[in-house]
Amino acid sequence: MTLSALQFARDHQAAFLEELKHLLRIPSVSTRPEHRADVQEAAAWLARELRAMGMEHVELLEVNTGKGESGHPLVLADWLHAPGKPTVLCYGHYDVQPPDPLDEWVTPPFEPTEREGNLYARGAVDDKGQMYMHLKALASLFAAHGGRLPVNVRVILEGEEEVGGESIGIFVQEGGDRLRADFALISDTEMFAPELPTLCVGLRGMIYTEVEVRGARTDLHSGMYGGAAPNPFLALARILAGLKDAQGRILIPGIYDGIEAPTADELAAWRRLPFDEARYLEEEIGAPALVGEPGYSVMERTWARPTLEVHGMPGGFVGAGAKTVIPARATAKISLRLVPGMRADEVFGKFKQHVESLLEQGVTAEVRLIHSGEPAVIGTDNPYIRSAVEALRQVWGTEPVFVRSGGSIPVVGEFARALRIPSVMMGFGLPDDNLHAPNEKFAIANFHRGIETLITFFELLGARTGEAAG
Amino acid sequence: MTLSALQFARDHQAAFLEELKHLLRIPSVSTRPEHRADVQEAAAWLARELRAMGMEHVELLEVNTGKGESGHPLVLADWLHAPGKPTVLCYGHYDVQPPDPLDEWVTPPFEPTEREGNLYARGAVDDKGQMYMHLKALASLFAAHGGRLPVNVRVILEGEEEVGGESIGIFVQEGGDRLRADFALISDTEMFAPELPTLCVGLRGMIYTEVEVRGARTDLHSGMYGGAAPNPFLALARILAGLKDAQGRILIPGIYDGIEAPTADELAAWRRLPFDEARYLEEEIGAPALVGEPGYSVMERTWARPTLEVHGMPGGFVGAGAKTVIPARATAKISLRLVPGMRADEVFGKFKQHVESLLEQGVTAEVRLIHSGEPAVIGTDNPYIRSAVEALRQVWGTEPVFVRSGGSIPVVGEFARALRIPSVMMGFGLPDDNLHAPNEKFAIANFHRGIETLITFFELLGARTGEAAG
Repeated sequence: MTLSALQFARDHQAAFLEELKHLLRIPSVSTRPEHRADVQEAAAWLARELRAMGMEHVELLEVNTGKGESGHPLVLADWLHAPGKPTVLCYGHYDVQPPDPLDEWVTPPFEPTEREGNLYARGAVDDKGQMYMHLKALASLFAAHGGRLPVNVRVILEGEEEVGGESIGIFVQEGGDRLRADFALISDTEMFAPELPTLCVGLRGMIYTEVEVRGARTDLHSGMYGGAAPNPFLALARILAGLKDAQGRILIPGIYDGIEAPTADELAAWRRLPFDEARYLEEEIGAPALVGEPGYSVMERTWARPTLEVHGMPGGFVGAGAKTVIPARATAKISLRLVPGMRADEVFGKFKQHVESLLEQGVTAEVRLIHSGEPAVIGTDNPYIRSAVEALRQVWGTEPVFVRSGGSIPVVGEFARALRIPSVMMGFGLPDDNLHAPNEKFAIANFHRGIETLITFFELLGARTGEAAG
Repeated sequence: MTLSALQFARDHQAAFLEELKHLLRIPSVSTRPEHRADVQEAAAWLARELRAMGMEHVELLEVNTGKGESGHPLVLADWLHAPGKPTVLCYGHYDVQPPDPLDEWVTPPFEPTEREGNLYARGAVDDKGQMYMHLKALASLFAAHGGRLPVNVRVILEGEEEVGGESIGIFVQEGGDRLRADFALISDTEMFAPELPTLCVGLRGMIYTEVEVRGARTDLHSGMYGGAAPNPFLALARILAGLKDAQGRILIPGIYDGIEAPTADELAAWRRLPFDEARYLEEEIGAPALVGEPGYSVMERTWARPTLEVHGMPGGFVGAGAKTVIPARATAKISLRLVPGMRADEVFGKFKQHVESLLEQGVTAEVRLIHSGEPAVIGTDNPYIRSAVEALRQVWGTEPVFVRSGGSIPVVGEFARALRIPSVMMGFGLPDDNLHAPNEKFAIANFHRGIETLITFFELLGARTGEAAG
């Protein structure tokens, strides 16, 4: 039986890839109101796929977020006819990041294009391509097993991951039985290196904020009023300079209090990972030098230490040429990544208080929390992780490694707290896949091998039932 | 004769205003390439006006700026048939600032609208409305004097004042005889207060720059790379914080060297001006407090001290919502206003050196000079200023005041250096006219009274010839 599901997937590689391209052509940018219909279309397209393969109770659910307008729909489905077998909650997201800056894309972000073994498109790897591996693994199993699956499966796909996942946050709290499962399976992480199968067992959390500084009532002529009117950009620059120093140390009082360091074993394992800092700087970053807190390795700085970044500073005059204006307002989009031992609400409180303490004469500020997610660390001592290790070993022919990710998948923390289930984070992206950046890509070989790994994982779970808790 | 030119202007007030509205409807935004045809149209429209009233040698001149593309046209004209009388060089500019932010305009910037005695439009006062007073004063004189003027007149109108005036700068150097005159007349300044006729006798210069900071080769995911990749916005914020302190003191080494302070007489006259700082803060600025160097009055800070402003910070993610990106680059548009004793090229050198000294590990920077203009102080002991004082006194019925402006009119310095002529800066704008800002306006009464003042000025100059140098 196993062979035949794998064989089905191998026989249909070309078709699977073409179907993924169809999904990637839908510009489901969740943060942009003008793409609302596209987000809906992506959800409806996925629901049709789930129904066609044999999933049941397929539904688009719009959650009332209490803000007058419902969020982007959750796509729900299940197949629960494997009594005594574990129940897997497959999670993924079909929304994508905005594609800007558009002029840096070699080919347009919503015209998926194959080049040198990669598929280039916004969402190719984050997360449409990886989410779609789940669907194609399930479809292959249905086809090979006569319309049945080796385990019980629930599917939940969201369209708000890139904007904070408010709908799924509410549904996980309130959805109860419809999400009952033994563990969650998530493919929204990456491999540590090509050909190195990887399980992610820790994620940073985050808070995403906006700080808007206001000076004069209206924009003013910088000749007439320069020397008397406050300049919100300069006031904001001095605030930013007071948030993080040039060494990468965050200057918010108490921000490092209570942080849980990685264990000695974990640190030792990270040191054994194949990592060439000079190559990382040259090939992945491409800047004159790396930055970050002295005394911590790159892995520690990006996985296990909090960071603060500025994403953009809207306001004022940003066109070509010169406009001599003192802008009335300036905004900074600022996020912090959180590590175990930090709580999003506490961090936002400290951040807000510190920003307000840095305000100078002549300006006011509004500090807004746009969204947040808690950090998470997953234990490795459960049968689902063990089956995942075995599946990776079989398909990739080498021993998998455990890593953390510096990114944030808030739903992992929500599954842990509300559903009390662990997550298996098995992703097949590569470090140079340009997530959230121009020319996002997914290695086509990894897409197909990911599907085979997931098929093997489901088969192993179905065979090893006795080991799993019911 | 005098009465009849004034009477002609009074009889044609409605027509003059309608014609000005036509000019204001042409969106001649010189900094925007997409408005190039509009700038041309405004120039051609003005040339037709000048020809129709009786000016001679009317010409659109495109100056070769040596950059492959010619600049926006100069509009030239003259009427030189008053032997023994002084020659006036009338200067104005027909280009305007960009209208952004558009959503703060009560009525659209290029649909001139009358409200409460004001005409609202981009360029209403800066400088289309004020420049047009010259044309209508000349047209009234031609009509009343049987096709003649009481003095010799040259006209030069430019379309690049808001972008640095490169074409006129070259033409003033090279134009020779075509600009020979006794003095220049410029209406691009404002009255110190309503009903207070004002002559401006000093201007700040400026340098307008861009500082672009570059970090990673491409935008990066802030989760994956936060803690290792440089953030150009944070590096740029620390540079900005190192350029000017919260007290308004510029931190560039040597920037205050050699500055010429105003004379004791000038400072005493400024103290006698009707100025209510609380009202200025409330009505003109509308911020919680004024800022600027301690120990200097608002007049000193805005007219006689150098200042540094940030106009906008392009780059990164500036849309609504959240995008978790470490931008590859960040730019700040920064200008400095210069006062007598400072030279633009020296200031830019000090600025660039200081910015580069503030660069930190992981980033590079490019410091670009966009344009510059020298500061200027005009003497008041010449017959043209005396006639201007007399004209203002006659039409406004009160004694005029001498002030400086914090703004920059680089051509005044160029006229002084290349043509060796003084400028009479007689403007009729008001302090709350929203120059360079949304809802720019011009008091309609001041437009008409400005025309009458200019007619009176030309008549007085024609009558007092004996006094003037030939």
